Amino acid sequence: MINGEMFIGARAVKGSVGEVRGVNPETGETLEPAYGGATREQLDEACRLAAEAFDPYRSAPREARAAFLEAIAQNILDLGDELVERTVAESGLPRGRIEGERGRTVGQLRLFAQVVRDGRYLGARIDPALPERKPLPRPDVRTRMIPLGPVAVFGASNFPLAFSVAGGDTASALAAGCPVVAKAHPAHPGTSELVGRAIRDAVASSGLPEGVFSLVFDSGYEIGQALVADPRIKAVGFTGSRRGGLALVKIAQERPEPIPVYAEMSSINPVILFAGALEERGPQIATAFVNSLMMGAGQFCTSPGLILAIAGEGLDRFTRAAGEALQDASAGTMLTPGIHQAYCAGVEALARHERVETVARGKAGHNFQGQAGLFSTGAEAFLADAHLREEIFGSSSLIVRCADEPELANVVESLEGQLTAALHMAESDHEDARRLLPVLERKVGRILVNGFGTGVEVNHAMVHGGPFPSTSDGRSTSVGTMAIDRFLRPVAYQDLPEALLPDELKDSNPAHVDRLVDGRPVLG
Amino acid sequence: MINGEMFIGARAVKGSVGEVRGVNPETGETLEPAYGGATREQLDEACRLAAEAFDPYRSAPREARAAFLEAIAQNILDLGDELVERTVAESGLPRGRIEGERGRTVGQLRLFAQVVRDGRYLGARIDPALPERKPLPRPDVRTRMIPLGPVAVFGASNFPLAFSVAGGDTASALAAGCPVVAKAHPAHPGTSELVGRAIRDAVASSGLPEGVFSLVFDSGYEIGQALVADPRIKAVGFTGSRRGGLALVKIAQERPEPIPVYAEMSSINPVILFAGALEERGPQIATAFVNSLMMGAGQFCTSPGLILAIAGEGLDRFTRAAGEALQDASAGTMLTPGIHQAYCAGVEALARHERVETVARGKAGHNFQGQAGLFSTGAEAFLADAHLREEIFGSSSLIVRCADEPELANVVESLEGQLTAALHMAESDHEDARRLLPVLERKVGRILVNGFGTGVEVNHAMVHGGPFPSTSDGRSTSVGTMAIDRFLRPVAYQDLPEALLPDELKDSNPAHVDRLVDGRPVLG
Repeated sequence: MINGEMFIGARAVKGSVGEVRGVNPETGETLEPAYGGATREQLDEACRLAAEAFDPYRSAPREARAAFLEAIAQNILDLGDELVERTVAESGLPRGRIEGERGRTVGQLRLFAQVVRDGRYLGARIDPALPERKPLPRPDVRTRMIPLGPVAVFGASNFPLAFSVAGGDTASALAAGCPVVAKAHPAHPGTSELVGRAIRDAVASSGLPEGVFSLVFDSGYEIGQALVADPRIKAVGFTGSRRGGLALVKIAQERPEPIPVYAEMSSINPVILFAGALEERGPQIATAFVNSLMMGAGQFCTSPGLILAIAGEGLDRFTRAAGEALQDASAGTMLTPGIHQAYCAGVEALARHERVETVARGKAGHNFQGQAGLFSTGAEAFLADAHLREEIFGSSSLIVRCADEPELANVVESLEGQLTAALHMAESDHEDARRLLPVLERKVGRILVNGFGTGVEVNHAMVHGGPFPSTSDGRSTSVGTMAIDRFLRPVAYQDLPEALLPDELKDSNPAHVDRLVDGRPVLG
Repeated sequence: MINGEMFIGARAVKGSVGEVRGVNPETGETLEPAYGGATREQLDEACRLAAEAFDPYRSAPREARAAFLEAIAQNILDLGDELVERTVAESGLPRGRIEGERGRTVGQLRLFAQVVRDGRYLGARIDPALPERKPLPRPDVRTRMIPLGPVAVFGASNFPLAFSVAGGDTASALAAGCPVVAKAHPAHPGTSELVGRAIRDAVASSGLPEGVFSLVFDSGYEIGQALVADPRIKAVGFTGSRRGGLALVKIAQERPEPIPVYAEMSSINPVILFAGALEERGPQIATAFVNSLMMGAGQFCTSPGLILAIAGEGLDRFTRAAGEALQDASAGTMLTPGIHQAYCAGVEALARHERVETVARGKAGHNFQGQAGLFSTGAEAFLADAHLREEIFGSSSLIVRCADEPELANVVESLEGQLTAALHMAESDHEDARRLLPVLERKVGRILVNGFGTGVEVNHAMVHGGPFPSTSDGRSTSVGTMAIDRFLRPVAYQDLPEALLPDELKDSNPAHVDRLVDGRPVLG
């Protein structure tokens, strides 16, 4: 099943530009087979097929689209252990994590099937005609959301299943009615091929046009860039580095027809420890914090990279407890040699920073394992050096001691946009928290209490997004059912005869969707 | 009441950079008084006040915000005839039109008050905790929309009331909870001052922080550009030319923190005449078309600039009838000398085009009146020259004769994104229309039948937007209640104690808003 192939529509082909190879970061071993990068002609063909598939795919019955998403989920499960083993080998992530991630991947495909079935995402609205209105009769106006067009999806390295070829971006784009051209992440080509074939087969068994899905490899950056520049592509989903995300945003903006890019890029996820909570259970919070920090070797977008608290005995106790827990933490294998190298450089710079103290380092590891690091500094130093506010992707975190509540608020104000903020509080901290909430709302996409941002639920209310630069578009989420909204735009129909209206907007509502009629909700 | 003042928060001040003066385009007369452009310090102060006002304004009770919008509406009505006369003098638009536009302006402020009161725009979602879930308990996640921050609004020349200082962008931004810094359009400074004072007074009488609204003049482009570049501004609303809109988009994208720009820029609004309709009532359609084309001297964003039909006797009959009606049409006064000049240049280029025939010209006018023009060409010529697809702002329209249905579909495919498409059809045309609908959906924001795009309803289902370049963000509408969505972003709260939750997300739903609970709608 692992042949070194990519998929241009239904066709399994090999690329011929350069070479992409998985590396087992646990062993350093280079994995077979080699994957060739796509040619420009292969990419062109994928985009052409996607454009051709767009109208038939989006006008297929919603039930067909829902069943297709479920077929993808089933095909992924049917890959069985081969998929799990390959993903473990290519990512260095433990088997249990990968099995969990497969569950999330399958779960979110099925959740989007449900979203497509109930049709609420269509945002159907009807303002009926008022032929007797003076001075002019009111026309009949009806609106629904339609998909944007073919979407480019860039697989992420840190979620080789849940945010890669069949991950959240692909699931939400396909659910919206957009064909997808996926660019495989070079760190897990075998995983990408397996999952890509699962989707390709689901397209075929669902009787959909082959262009609904293609998967291309890129041995450098040329194909990814050309994909975003292709005039047939109408939106982009990306999870990765700030540099990579901003490069794609720039290409998208410079097109003759600019398109939206949903790039999830970087976040240090401040954790705020209030005095009451520190007093009540500082050491327990420290243990939970270190557990969160070590998850997936710190390679979560929501890893707690920053701890903010008011200096004092409570924070000292927390710091000691966290330092002790961290010392015993085993180094985790990082996703790629490049990520490991960047992590080491980031941590070394922190350790050498003259106004930063090292609280503790985790156990040293071998090969591409990241040795955890916990550091500490004062608010003044933190405010003075923007480098201290940059993400270090991995198990590194910085404690910032603030003199008082206003200084803590200043530190929060100094932060760039973030995915999450976590507040640890006791009942006695409520008023302090209340004052800080408006500031946090302006800075982050998710505010959570007495927990950590790692472990993102895939549900209806989740927001995994946040102001720039945590994402390139803070009006959106890439996780949860609202992610579908990224790939939609409204179209209004005025006085269109009933026979020509889409079912969701017909008077009789044969599609049974919830609608807003004259501004009032009418359940389907 | 007309003193040559602008408003920096509560303060009425005069600018001192250059001069802005209204010109009565009907007479050519320069109007008193002169307005000075804002200084950089004045602009800075307006942005500072807006940023300070943001948290208190957005956290004020929704009822207070709704009452504030209604107070603005009442203050505008209370300006009485002084406002109408000044707007007529500055725009050259007839009194009846301005009175109607005032009604729309007041109506949309009141409609947004209703939107704020019912709170559905908050998109409240709740996924309750499942403490017993295995392997991990599910946290409680709740989401609502919050406003983006201070918004820059650029007044439009062609709707000096409904899309200017207190127009649709301002109304929807204020409704969302965003303070507004408005940049007055230089073509109607007196109108802007009057309306600006009405808003300023409503801010004061509503007990809101003064920074909720400021109005600045700009004698060139510097202040408008600096406004978009100001780090405290978080979104931009604009209606105007493609050049102007794209310049603002570029500034917004190049900021350290890029922000969304909602620019409504240009559209030629294709009208498609099907064979059955031409046969049944070609001459009647021709009369209605000329009426639409002449409205407001063709200075509507939705003016019918392009007629598409299959060549034949039906189209010839339509063309003759439209030409005859147009010949009798009086020239309309255009908004500004600059717009008049651009219109004349556009029409002359069409008239001189070697593959374009002049069907008819309207009556010649005086001063800055635009002489209507109806032209005709073949599909081949139209496809060969992209200039023929450019907007000519004013009462000019081009008929494109297509050989057959596929050629007509090609012409539609060749178009850039548009605000509207109008279809004229008889029962016998339904199948032809059905085949064309998917193409039109990809190209336009509103598809209307047996009418013309001019006369946009302000309701819940309206879409006044469309793919690039008709707007810079085809996922949005600038007219109707959905316009509020442009200025919102979601924030999720995870396990936040009930006492700290916003009312709209509390278990008891004291705010009585409709919510999505576990993915199912629960009416408030």
